[in-house]
Amino acid sequence: MASDNAAGAHPDIVQALVRANADHALAYGQDVYTEQARQLFNDLFGRQVRTEFVYGGTGANVLALACMLKPADSVVCTEMAHIAVDEAGAPERILGAKLQTRPSPDAKLTPQDILDVVHLRGNIHHAQPAVVSITQATELGTLYSAGEVREICAVAHQHGLLVHMDGARLANAAAALGASPQALRSFTVDAGVDVLSFGGTKAGLVFGEAVVFFNTGLGDRVENIRKQITQLHSKMRFISAQYIELLRTDLFFKLGGQANAMALALYEKTRHHESLGLHAPPAVNSLFPTIQPRAAQALQDWAFFWDWDAPNHKYRWMTAWDVKSQDIDTFAEAVSQALKI
Amino acid sequence: MASDNAAGAHPDIVQALVRANADHALAYGQDVYTEQARQLFNDLFGRQVRTEFVYGGTGANVLALACMLKPADSVVCTEMAHIAVDEAGAPERILGAKLQTRPSPDAKLTPQDILDVVHLRGNIHHAQPAVVSITQATELGTLYSAGEVREICAVAHQHGLLVHMDGARLANAAAALGASPQALRSFTVDAGVDVLSFGGTKAGLVFGEAVVFFNTGLGDRVENIRKQITQLHSKMRFISAQYIELLRTDLFFKLGGQANAMALALYEKTRHHESLGLHAPPAVNSLFPTIQPRAAQALQDWAFFWDWDAPNHKYRWMTAWDVKSQDIDTFAEAVSQALKI
Amino acid sequence: MASDNAAGAHPDIVQALVRANADHALAYGQDVYTEQARQLFNDLFGRQVRTEFVYGGTGANVLALACMLKPADSVVCTEMAHIAVDEAGAPERILGAKLQTRPSPDAKLTPQDILDVVHLRGNIHHAQPAVVSITQATELGTLYSAGEVREICAVAHQHGLLVHMDGARLANAAAALGASPQALRSFTVDAGVDVLSFGGTKAGLVFGEAVVFFNTGLGDRVENIRKQITQLHSKMRFISAQYIELLRTDLFFKLGGQANAMALALYEKTRHHESLGLHAPPAVNSLFPTIQPRAAQALQDWAFFWDWDAPNHKYRWMTAWDVKSQDIDTFAEAVSQALKI
Amino acid sequence: MASDNAAGAHPDIVQALVRANADHALAYGQDVYTEQARQLFNDLFGRQVRTEFVYGGTGANVLALACMLKPADSVVCTEMAHIAVDEAGAPERILGAKLQTRPSPDAKLTPQDILDVVHLRGNIHHAQPAVVSITQATELGTLYSAGEVREICAVAHQHGLLVHMDGARLANAAAALGASPQALRSFTVDAGVDVLSFGGTKAGLVFGEAVVFFNTGLGDRVENIRKQITQLHSKMRFISAQYIELLRTDLFFKLGGQANAMALALYEKTRHHESLGLHAPPAVNSLFPTIQPRAAQALQDWAFFWDWDAPNHKYRWMTAWDVKSQDIDTFAEAVSQALKI
Repeated sequence: MASDNAAGAHPDIVQALVRANADHALAYGQDVYTEQARQLFNDLFGRQVRTEFVYGGTGANVLALACMLKPADSVVCTEMAHIAVDEAGAPERILGAKLQTRPSPDAKLTPQDILDVVHLRGNIHHAQPAVVSITQATELGTLYSAGEVREICAVAHQHGLLVHMDGARLANAAAALGASPQALRSFTVDAGVDVLSFGGTKAGLVFGEAVVFFNTGLGDRVENIRKQITQLHSKMRFISAQYIELLRTDLFFKLGGQANAMALALYEKTRHHESLGLHAPPAVNSLFPTIQPRAAQALQDWAFFWDWDAPNHKYRWMTAWDVKSQDIDTFAEAVSQALKI
Repeated sequence: MASDNAAGAHPDIVQALVRANADHALAYGQDVYTEQARQLFNDLFGRQVRTEFVYGGTGANVLALACMLKPADSVVCTEMAHIAVDEAGAPERILGAKLQTRPSPDAKLTPQDILDVVHLRGNIHHAQPAVVSITQATELGTLYSAGEVREICAVAHQHGLLVHMDGARLANAAAALGASPQALRSFTVDAGVDVLSFGGTKAGLVFGEAVVFFNTGLGDRVENIRKQITQLHSKMRFISAQYIELLRTDLFFKLGGQANAMALALYEKTRHHESLGLHAPPAVNSLFPTIQPRAAQALQDWAFFWDWDAPNHKYRWMTAWDVKSQDIDTFAEAVSQALKI
Repeated sequence: MASDNAAGAHPDIVQALVRANADHALAYGQDVYTEQARQLFNDLFGRQVRTEFVYGGTGANVLALACMLKPADSVVCTEMAHIAVDEAGAPERILGAKLQTRPSPDAKLTPQDILDVVHLRGNIHHAQPAVVSITQATELGTLYSAGEVREICAVAHQHGLLVHMDGARLANAAAALGASPQALRSFTVDAGVDVLSFGGTKAGLVFGEAVVFFNTGLGDRVENIRKQITQLHSKMRFISAQYIELLRTDLFFKLGGQANAMALALYEKTRHHESLGLHAPPAVNSLFPTIQPRAAQALQDWAFFWDWDAPNHKYRWMTAWDVKSQDIDTFAEAVSQALKI
Repeated sequence: MASDNAAGAHPDIVQALVRANADHALAYGQDVYTEQARQLFNDLFGRQVRTEFVYGGTGANVLALACMLKPADSVVCTEMAHIAVDEAGAPERILGAKLQTRPSPDAKLTPQDILDVVHLRGNIHHAQPAVVSITQATELGTLYSAGEVREICAVAHQHGLLVHMDGARLANAAAALGASPQALRSFTVDAGVDVLSFGGTKAGLVFGEAVVFFNTGLGDRVENIRKQITQLHSKMRFISAQYIELLRTDLFFKLGGQANAMALALYEKTRHHESLGLHAPPAVNSLFPTIQPRAAQALQDWAFFWDWDAPNHKYRWMTAWDVKSQDIDTFAEAVSQALKI
């Protein structure tokens, strides 16, 4: 339950990677795998998009934002955003840009958050809000509905801001919101998102993420910038081939759904422990129980998971695509044991 | 009432600058004026400090922080801090560092704010809190007592963080807290501050700020970094000579005190307008009245001052060192007229 | 002979600064002095230009380039360029951009230098040459003719590059090339330069430089970026007032010419020392004599000047606007004495 | 012959990656694979080193340098260095540091190059040379002998500079210089190198590079900085497992040697074409023939390879670990055909 990064890669994806090793291929994305993977992204979103592959999730976010920002711009996001909290200051160092963070109890940004900062635009003393970045599914395991994303994009665009979506857990969101290309489009491109970090690693890949430009003009310099921020893989076919496998069937939606289902199962099997404070089923693949120190320690020693809000004894249980019902039963039993300590 | 930056320079300081023009002097600080100014800083603080001059306030803050930060570090400050709000993202661009902002109704950081973020240290996914930056007097015209600064420094140092003080309005703070070198030392070097941005421009200079290293080892690379961040003045004697004039008498404390006294006078003459919501005398040189739009507009048209919190009709009246009682009377009368609209 | 930065400021300019101190003025350039100074720049160049003031020369260059560069771009300049050698890495730190330096015996860039790097454009592995930066007068005291600048601009523009001119010593160049607005225009705006760093400090100011956008669209974000790179002076009238004095008469050309004339006089009075290797009169205000160590040391002890190429015993004598014939006589006599050692 | 990046991955390495997918593993390097891989690096170098894994080669170089540089420092390297030419300005953007490039006909830095720049140290106007970066094997396919590296390190250390080695093609260098751990140590750790970018991708991996700190103290912040520069792979076992396979046998030396041998075979089979100008056998795995345009075009159309020095009709033929004698025969035959055009 430590992280969706603790899972390995799906066997089909690994096999696709192995198959891609058959022959020489031109480096840096001039290969047939990359061409085919890009076409699958076009198909998935039902239009011509610009898709570029990178190594990792922080790299995807930084690359997307680097293509969207001008000097003295800032990024509006919640104070829980991965870019603001969990990337060790990568955006500030590599983008040289301020993150204008907004308080948010549920890790979701609201249109009002945008309205609250647009007055900074035009004032030379302030960094200029220029990009809104939202995370789907959020860092707290909540979801934006398609309507909510649409409203955020509308307000942002109305005031001249662009919208980036950090989709490190896009598979979980897509599975929860309809598990179809149509559903995925409804809260991304159809809602007005300009650039999307399309998560691969947490969705079952060995490595590799994609940055999808719906607003294709923003990608004019993306290849130069990708190299400049250290995210160009020379043997790119090995990323592309994994994405082909993920997208040519319904694997993307299936793996996201499996992780979600296991989180729900864990919720069902542990919600009766009132002390955990699990009052609502998870929207995607994480639970945030409250556990007293001794019990938490015992449980973590047995199977590691992360602290979330240490002072308040909050922890995070996160299910990956490879968790099985049996795992949930075993873990729930361990929880029951630990809570007796 | 627009800003302490709308004032000119004190005539004595201008004359000191004129006198410094008498002859050739070695450039880049190798001159007798700079030597003498540095000695006056040593005298002011009662010990050997390292003092370097820069052009402006944002430059002073960025230089100080650049000397204190290592890669992947962050700066802890309030969400109202000048470095976080009013420097157009200079710290993020030039330092490449995250500002870890904390909510604060009175623009003052507390020891608890530090304790709330120290758990980020040691976690490789988070920027590492390494410097605490406090503003004295604050952006809201409040003050830290010597004891409060002492406590902040103690907690910071205990957890391995350094302390920077942004003293753009240090003269106002010093005047309010005792108006003597001893008083100034009590809330700076004696309290444990490591590096101080020592404001000059708002205190009556034509241009020029000082960065004072109490923790002198932090200044080992300051001259290289000053040049690298565009803050090295070739004809440095012109800054040094102004500081000599500011510090060789009690002008520094006097000008800060004059600005403070005028803000108090304005408070006394306008507090009876209940709609302004001025419930307590100013600690230094600013008032934050609430004014309804039509009255505010009329008053701003007559004599410009800044919005502070536009949605809530809050404005900022700020007195400079050169404001006189007569100016206050005239302005207070204008306020009375405007409120009748 | 140390530097044109060792001179003070011209008395007329200092008096203009003193006069500007008469009253309150809006901060940050919203004042009548700044408006008037901008108009004088329009007049000087015979068209509507965009002029912004900054503190110093490195700041001017960095601001100009920051307005001209996109991510992953590079700047083409000679390996002797001030931005490449004498700014302590400011461009790399603040711009995050590569300087593509070219060897040049006379510190002048050629059209061929541009042609030699344009093939890098379009290749994602290389930083993209996007701006050509030339220095006028150069770091070696040489000059570009109007025709040479025109040719550089033509080649640059033809290949999609912009042209920046570092005019820290523009006054010396302008004086040498005609000493009139027409002459100045001929090798700047009329030649196709896009953005000009218009030197003030070396031309007799206390402090302050100007950035002039002939390609005015490049200045759209200049005010935000100026603040972000720490170069916005709050009491801007003090810079503007000095520029007004410099430009409202022919002072700019006169001071540049005086420095040039004194370098020529020094050349005439020392050229007979064959060991100095002074074979041609200076184009502007510097000489680069060869002096053996003992003589150089004796002379430097008496009146400091800088090493230029230490391994080859080359030194730099530089005359400022305030050097007088008597100074030259004295210095030339000292040279004769020293060479007898 | 396009690039050693056009090869796939060695089958044994791919299988090691597949095996590592067997189970959950803690993320971010807290796994047994990473522990074992680190131990293999200790064994390889015969001492306790600090080894950290990253995604790619540019990332490895930037991470290494980020751990070695202080503000206002510069990196000394040849003008052909990969960091200077082929990383799209990544060092400048992410490090904010100047690369002090030196001309070099054979892409090798000399001790004299270091001596020529050390005089910049201590001068606040210049970026401070602090790290020497050399590439082994070089971008021109040349090699430093162990003695040459030793001398460079000695001179660098004597003047207070550190030494970084970019070993993207370390396998080729190691194979050419002895093909044993002892030989590898002789020109790296035993010679005094402080930090090594240990190439994996060109040596037969799917992805992944290592940064090896011989000067282990320099690695104190490496984990934070790795995350900050976007180079932390969450599922790190997949990189570690590949390195285990590369190092637990002699695969590393064998693959490097195979590529070298094929370049030599190609040399032997094409040197008789005088127009190619191949006058000496390759030290490692690349040849730089001169080919007239029409022949080059025909050959590139048939099997892509890169231009090297377009104006002079120089090209680069590069052999990868997977090239076989049959491939060389076919290619050499094609060369003969093309030259007849």
